[in-house]
Amino acid sequence: MQEGALRDGKIVLSEKPLVLETPLDKLADFITPTESFYVRTHFPIPRIDKNKWRLRVEGEVEEPFEINFDELTALESKKIPATLECAGNNRSFLEPKVKGVQWTLGGVSNAEWTGVPLSILLDRAGVKSSAREIILEGADRGKPDDPKSPSCEFNFARSIPLEKARDVLLAHKMNDVDLPIENGFPVRAIVSGWYAVASIKWLQQIIVTDKPFNGYYQTLDYSYWKREGELAELMPLREMAIKAQITRPSEGETVPANSDMRVHGAAWGGDGEITKVEVSSDGGATWNKANLVGESKPNAWRLWEFSWKTPPRPGKATLIARATDSKGQSQPTERDPDRGTYMINHLLPIVVEIR
Amino acid sequence: MQEGALRDGKIVLSEKPLVLETPLDKLADFITPTESFYVRTHFPIPRIDKNKWRLRVEGEVEEPFEINFDELTALESKKIPATLECAGNNRSFLEPKVKGVQWTLGGVSNAEWTGVPLSILLDRAGVKSSAREIILEGADRGKPDDPKSPSCEFNFARSIPLEKARDVLLAHKMNDVDLPIENGFPVRAIVSGWYAVASIKWLQQIIVTDKPFNGYYQTLDYSYWKREGELAELMPLREMAIKAQITRPSEGETVPANSDMRVHGAAWGGDGEITKVEVSSDGGATWNKANLVGESKPNAWRLWEFSWKTPPRPGKATLIARATDSKGQSQPTERDPDRGTYMINHLLPIVVEIR
Repeated sequence: MQEGALRDGKIVLSEKPLVLETPLDKLADFITPTESFYVRTHFPIPRIDKNKWRLRVEGEVEEPFEINFDELTALESKKIPATLECAGNNRSFLEPKVKGVQWTLGGVSNAEWTGVPLSILLDRAGVKSSAREIILEGADRGKPDDPKSPSCEFNFARSIPLEKARDVLLAHKMNDVDLPIENGFPVRAIVSGWYAVASIKWLQQIIVTDKPFNGYYQTLDYSYWKREGELAELMPLREMAIKAQITRPSEGETVPANSDMRVHGAAWGGDGEITKVEVSSDGGATWNKANLVGESKPNAWRLWEFSWKTPPRPGKATLIARATDSKGQSQPTERDPDRGTYMINHLLPIVVEIR
Repeated sequence: MQEGALRDGKIVLSEKPLVLETPLDKLADFITPTESFYVRTHFPIPRIDKNKWRLRVEGEVEEPFEINFDELTALESKKIPATLECAGNNRSFLEPKVKGVQWTLGGVSNAEWTGVPLSILLDRAGVKSSAREIILEGADRGKPDDPKSPSCEFNFARSIPLEKARDVLLAHKMNDVDLPIENGFPVRAIVSGWYAVASIKWLQQIIVTDKPFNGYYQTLDYSYWKREGELAELMPLREMAIKAQITRPSEGETVPANSDMRVHGAAWGGDGEITKVEVSSDGGATWNKANLVGESKPNAWRLWEFSWKTPPRPGKATLIARATDSKGQSQPTERDPDRGTYMINHLLPIVVEIR
């Protein structure tokens, strides 16, 4: 199969490792269909027998233990919608071009996840007072193509501060069905509100630790530079930055002149609740409020729509969407280069053709 | 000036940034002459007026303050010998070749440092109980040639855990004279026992912090991978690894057959005191104890010598030196690739010509 081809209705961005983007037309609904949910893997996909799968909880705990799939799913589960976004979503729009998966708009999807709160397992193990972080480790394993990476294979892993553990679900169902193999079967973490790299797939181990974890995927990769005085400090990517994306019309689309067009999309991320989405059709000079669709749900995207009176004459028009949250945070106009190739949420104009 | 040329009696390994290696014959004495002390800079060398220089102490302290040069040097000073080694010393011997400054044996020197214990300044400021690390920041400033580095200039900085602060001297003299400009004038840190990257030159700020500092020079650079189960974790380079270096004879040197030759060098690093140096003249099959010269001083190298009965007939001979410390630690035979391009202390054979 070639890059750019379709696979199960998703766009192939890379074969090895497998990376599949959700097509724009599948981003229009609140729930992304399971088979359209984007896929980002880093190593070969582990094929796990559900009956042999075990999850170990260890480290700074009173009673380390192992749990199997039936035991886990017999515990009290919750069902929540949550949006997952790849930290490199929208990367193909960066100028100048940068290395990495060339996501357009489809490195994001929203699903309903059924799973067991991580806190139930932590309570059973008895977290010691020395605990500071939880390392989530997947069964996927390999060596990145990077001269600065570890010299031989290691497992994909990421950590969260202890305080974040209450927001983590160990999901065994996605939109009410078993997880697809490439989305982490049989169990993945869902770390609500964070870039998806934290939501470890093929979960096999939970390690409670007394110090910050400096794994590859939160230092050399999936990190950014934070400025503090005259210093710069490497930080793991965590919370999704606030963003409104336009699903329709798409870049270069032809739109009839002098008519009413429904501009729509989704908005997510940020510290608070999405409270406002605005649309500009004049390159950012003036802004109009869009309607927020449905009800607000924590950590899930909010769909929005705007009725656009298209220009009277043929030509080009530039549309921009901008989200604001309940804490007053919005999107930057300019790209911050200290973010490297990640966390791309500056305003992204799209140009359409008026006929 | 060209690379490989001599500058003030040192070997030029790089002009921009300035890197100068100590020639082998200057490594024979306990104290390296000030003008022969190796030089490793990362950014343009700051020219600081001693009368305008200020050192600020701030962060998690009760009373942040600034101190000038006369006030600092009026405080009680200590004088200690300490060996500084660049974490990339011996890099040119790595196979296959790797990027970075191509140090042979002269990325190490030993001097007597006169300075004020950092703990005096910390006590004056009053370190809060939340403190965990001390960031030492230099006046040197720039942007590394690395696509993953911060996007614009920042100051050279490194951190040490609070417990290590008692081993740090703020040195204003080196071998009883003012520091040379390229060695950190007017004040540099001396972090005893650690690779020299921690011994910040042109010191201008001391920041007490409540969390680990993830600066560029302890994450993307000057770091290594530590294995923990199926994970790999990025660690800052800290303690110098134990090592014995042969100063004489040098690689390829011609040595008379059937005679007594004084093989000598220096040994340093490791957690404990250097208690043994051995020399093999048959490629590591058998080992002979060398004599340790002078007295043992903490954090300074120990000179050693061995009277070698050279082989009776012309040909080649292979010499290897090996150090052991009071905790029983010694040097590895094989290179550990998780150390990247740093911490090179595996056994290094040198081949000489018997005539």
